[in-house]
Amino acid sequence: MLSFNNNQILLKRRPTGWVTPDDFELVQTPMPTVATGQVLIKNQFLSLDPYMRGRMNDAKSYAEPAKLGEVMVGGTVGEVIESQHSKFAIGDQVVGMLGWQTYGLSDGRGLQKVGSKSNPSPIPLSVWLGAAGMPGVTAYAGLFEIGQPKAGETVLVSAAAGAVGSVVGQLAKLHGCRAVGIAGGPEKCAYVCEKLGFDACVDYKSPEFRAQLKAATPNGVDVYFENVGGAILDAVLTRMNNFSRMPVCGLISDYNATEPYGVRNFVAILSKRIKIQGFIVTDFMSIWAQAVQTLAGHILAGRIKTHETIAEGLENAPTAFIGMLKGANLGKQLVRL
Amino acid sequence: MLSFNNNQILLKRRPTGWVTPDDFELVQTPMPTVATGQVLIKNQFLSLDPYMRGRMNDAKSYAEPAKLGEVMVGGTVGEVIESQHSKFAIGDQVVGMLGWQTYGLSDGRGLQKVGSKSNPSPIPLSVWLGAAGMPGVTAYAGLFEIGQPKAGETVLVSAAAGAVGSVVGQLAKLHGCRAVGIAGGPEKCAYVCEKLGFDACVDYKSPEFRAQLKAATPNGVDVYFENVGGAILDAVLTRMNNFSRMPVCGLISDYNATEPYGVRNFVAILSKRIKIQGFIVTDFMSIWAQAVQTLAGHILAGRIKTHETIAEGLENAPTAFIGMLKGANLGKQLVRL
Repeated sequence: MLSFNNNQILLKRRPTGWVTPDDFELVQTPMPTVATGQVLIKNQFLSLDPYMRGRMNDAKSYAEPAKLGEVMVGGTVGEVIESQHSKFAIGDQVVGMLGWQTYGLSDGRGLQKVGSKSNPSPIPLSVWLGAAGMPGVTAYAGLFEIGQPKAGETVLVSAAAGAVGSVVGQLAKLHGCRAVGIAGGPEKCAYVCEKLGFDACVDYKSPEFRAQLKAATPNGVDVYFENVGGAILDAVLTRMNNFSRMPVCGLISDYNATEPYGVRNFVAILSKRIKIQGFIVTDFMSIWAQAVQTLAGHILAGRIKTHETIAEGLENAPTAFIGMLKGANLGKQLVRL
Repeated sequence: MLSFNNNQILLKRRPTGWVTPDDFELVQTPMPTVATGQVLIKNQFLSLDPYMRGRMNDAKSYAEPAKLGEVMVGGTVGEVIESQHSKFAIGDQVVGMLGWQTYGLSDGRGLQKVGSKSNPSPIPLSVWLGAAGMPGVTAYAGLFEIGQPKAGETVLVSAAAGAVGSVVGQLAKLHGCRAVGIAGGPEKCAYVCEKLGFDACVDYKSPEFRAQLKAATPNGVDVYFENVGGAILDAVLTRMNNFSRMPVCGLISDYNATEPYGVRNFVAILSKRIKIQGFIVTDFMSIWAQAVQTLAGHILAGRIKTHETIAEGLENAPTAFIGMLKGANLGKQLVRL
């Protein structure tokens, strides 16, 4: 048994409205003992993602709520430091769902090996939590399986500077589409256009948002990849083309609202024959491996660019998480453990 | 040239909010002269349909707005009384879009022959404007092409006592589904269950609406055929199952509203991965003939029952139209000319 302790962040209470740091509790627990068939991982990065906000509620949703007093759920990447599992050896680099903690025990289920001591991961480990991981597959599945863009069409994506949105627009460009982003503030918009190569990006915080959105989509919008909802959704509905598609991946503007936003332009769905479809990335497990392979290929070749906002230390995960929900991050939000 | 005059109803002004009789004007005009390639029809029935409300606005929509000072658009069925067209003879029974008038001139385009003097229509002429016509095809296309119900699933339809909704539920039953309607008032609900054979019908005017909706859909809702929108839509979103489908055919509660309703439960689309798709029956011209054949077969065999609310005389069309928008009709709303 190793001598140091495990740091964990537990869900202490369920938030009403905005999450606060007091909703979490940092605890030190004994290092888990590795039994036969198990593997112990030292987590190097924790992924912070909007879906976690939903898990903090007690409401029935697509997944079970996180339990009070238990370790918060979350994707991790790290290195095997002890193994009694035939498929994993010390030094293996693995991606898993080990939660908000510095060390995690696994029976191997859901653990993806991305490198080993002799053959390390070809891309930085953290990228397996972003563009080559769950957020990347989310972008890929929503865009292609639901959005079904054709070359020459206009693809619009909100939260364009985020982990999912940044991949959506870059995949759309690679597919021959016009890629337009929506992001908060001129810095994010500049990043989206200049670093990621989108054709345009509109600042939703600008008082000229609607006029700028119109100017950025001269041929309307054929695919809107929805991450935010609220007033932005209503504005976009006025720009959608006949027979356009809207994969609904997230509605982050509602996650911390005590009163849900009322969508006023619903009638556009009828008059323009829009197809709107909600999805969760785990609905698309059948294409996961293919999507990851495609994404990793694009990343290695420099065709998909990534950016990370990294908080240092598990103790800073709650404030980083709250910041991400408010849009403070650029690209993928991570915690270095 | 025939000696009597043609009665027509023109669009006099565009309504703001609720339609009023003063938005229309009844005029008498000379009987049209029949030129080579044309056919003159004495209309027997005029169809009144919710889509006409949209045409009265000046807003860009899926169809051109009706023009001020011109005859209101509308489906008609009648008899050929003069023909200089090789494909039509005097006595032919024809369905067309000849508008709110007693006589109509046509070049044959869009004119569907449903009977002749020697071989009259096997079903009452008026039914070609209802269950065997545009409303029936609307029900068929939305239910099967978008809703894609499987036997054993629950199909819910709003405006269930109306021309479209009544066919949706009966087709769902024939398909092996549980059919549940939403209608306004106990009389309509009784009609939907007892005459049309739905498994249940919920009165949206009842203060117990939400509880009754829940009781009527013990296994949730797999397909919701949406005709009304508004607060009913929000209530239904709480009952939708994972991976359910929602063909959006109409949002009649919004058509006369000066402020659109804000849909508050949009987040259900994400959490339950609902597919929502707006459609217009003319998007499905490729299946029209097959749908009409299927529907007419069901009607002839008594498997689909129809009901009509008939206003007498063109001069009563405006009040009948306004009544239909308010839900005064049972089944298909027609005007006998």
